[in-house]
Amino acid sequence: VPGWNSVAIFGVGLIGGSIGLALRQRSLCPSVVGIGRDMRRLEAALERGAITRATTDVGQAVGDADVVVVCTPVRRVANHVLLVAAASRPDTLITDVGSTKLRIVAEIESCLPADRLFVGSHPLAGSDKSGVEFASSRLFQDRTVVITPTDRSGPEAVRRITEFWSALDAVPVTMPPESHDRALAQTSHLPHIVAAALAAGTPPEFLHLVASGWLDTTRVAAADGDLWTQILLENRENMLAAIRGYEGQLTGFARALESGDAEALQQLLNAGKQRRDAVGS
Amino acid sequence: VPGWNSVAIFGVGLIGGSIGLALRQRSLCPSVVGIGRDMRRLEAALERGAITRATTDVGQAVGDADVVVVCTPVRRVANHVLLVAAASRPDTLITDVGSTKLRIVAEIESCLPADRLFVGSHPLAGSDKSGVEFASSRLFQDRTVVITPTDRSGPEAVRRITEFWSALDAVPVTMPPESHDRALAQTSHLPHIVAAALAAGTPPEFLHLVASGWLDTTRVAAADGDLWTQILLENRENMLAAIRGYEGQLTGFARALESGDAEALQQLLNAGKQRRDAVGS
Repeated sequence: VPGWNSVAIFGVGLIGGSIGLALRQRSLCPSVVGIGRDMRRLEAALERGAITRATTDVGQAVGDADVVVVCTPVRRVANHVLLVAAASRPDTLITDVGSTKLRIVAEIESCLPADRLFVGSHPLAGSDKSGVEFASSRLFQDRTVVITPTDRSGPEAVRRITEFWSALDAVPVTMPPESHDRALAQTSHLPHIVAAALAAGTPPEFLHLVASGWLDTTRVAAADGDLWTQILLENRENMLAAIRGYEGQLTGFARALESGDAEALQQLLNAGKQRRDAVGS
Repeated sequence: VPGWNSVAIFGVGLIGGSIGLALRQRSLCPSVVGIGRDMRRLEAALERGAITRATTDVGQAVGDADVVVVCTPVRRVANHVLLVAAASRPDTLITDVGSTKLRIVAEIESCLPADRLFVGSHPLAGSDKSGVEFASSRLFQDRTVVITPTDRSGPEAVRRITEFWSALDAVPVTMPPESHDRALAQTSHLPHIVAAALAAGTPPEFLHLVASGWLDTTRVAAADGDLWTQILLENRENMLAAIRGYEGQLTGFARALESGDAEALQQLLNAGKQRRDAVGS
């Protein structure tokens, strides 16, 4: 079993808090330092046991960290990684958990000194909830974590980041940042638009008639609007392609309904069912 | 507490089976007769305790029924209600549980003798599962059941159907069939198209990267394709209007992304969040 003397978490919300809880409850690390702007919110993380020390001073927090995980909103990730790199040891492994990777990783790598160890990550966990109060030591259990090395990432850094996520019982998968962003546009980002559009288009006077179908289909519309605005804009080109593809699917449904074509309609529904059944609950 | 000597259920799947279980486990009815075409499937309902007697003969089943609930697929509901009416007593209350109401109720009322008691129902329960093996005596607990009387429905029939669903712990709501179909197009039927389009448009090679957002948003795509083809075609005009409205919402997202307008994007996401948060989990 691997272990670390000190891990620093920059941004202790749902994901950062869950990393801290997972490290602490598995006794993988005696010192988990939480970094943030708001001392009161860090104190909530301390009380939950997600971190063992809280600070608003990045330099003070990361000086002796073996691993630093940047869990701040995607708009700030690159700056925060560079701040951490400037204050940490050369052998400190730095990663982030941003939901988009291409621009973030490119921006970081264009500024990062060659001797620093950074590899991007994206744990596929969490969805409509945010805040350390929803954190869980089991959030990553059996969940895929995408690790996005580039030509500049050394094999040692990739090995260490894989080991880190494996220790939290996640399932690491490796792919280039651009492949990540193209796939996640469809599997994670598009659902937020699909759900928000359905929820927003439902007249308030119909809301007492919703049941599990509407509730499931719109669930991620409850996610934080500011965070998701950042993610969608970061992945703008892929999102536009994903929306166009999705509109094409909808057009198929509309045409089948217009012409009263039961066979075509059932084929479209069955194509969705087949894809959905392939995944499980 | 009300009670019935005999209730007949025509079509003992998820909904019919749950009605039977709810009646039996609340000791509301000593005799619950299941009617179907396939004796083997009826025997599964008998084994589950959802019915006390099984038959493929409608006439034999409904002769002494106080209430008959027709739970067959929407394409067959009107015919089955008329079959039941021909074989039952004038004071037998007949209802159905079809997901659409306007055409079904109109077809039934255009043929039904004036002295017969029929009022349409639609319990807002169940979604992607079907079959008596998923039936539950608590399926209707605190769930809305829409009751759709017309000018031809007597107040006594409406009172009796309201009492029936209340006894199963459902929450009856009354509205005209056309209002039901317009509202449910948005709150129940559109989610099936939205979910199926998202699932069908996700390339198989991306399926290992889905997480809770995609899983929630596509869940109802697993529903039975044949049943939903019938429902969508029955509610065709309302569905086309709902899809057009939904496409308008999507266009708003695409425009905000194209122009990189963070404020507009966040407003669209927040509109969805506000509507979703108004309902609860």
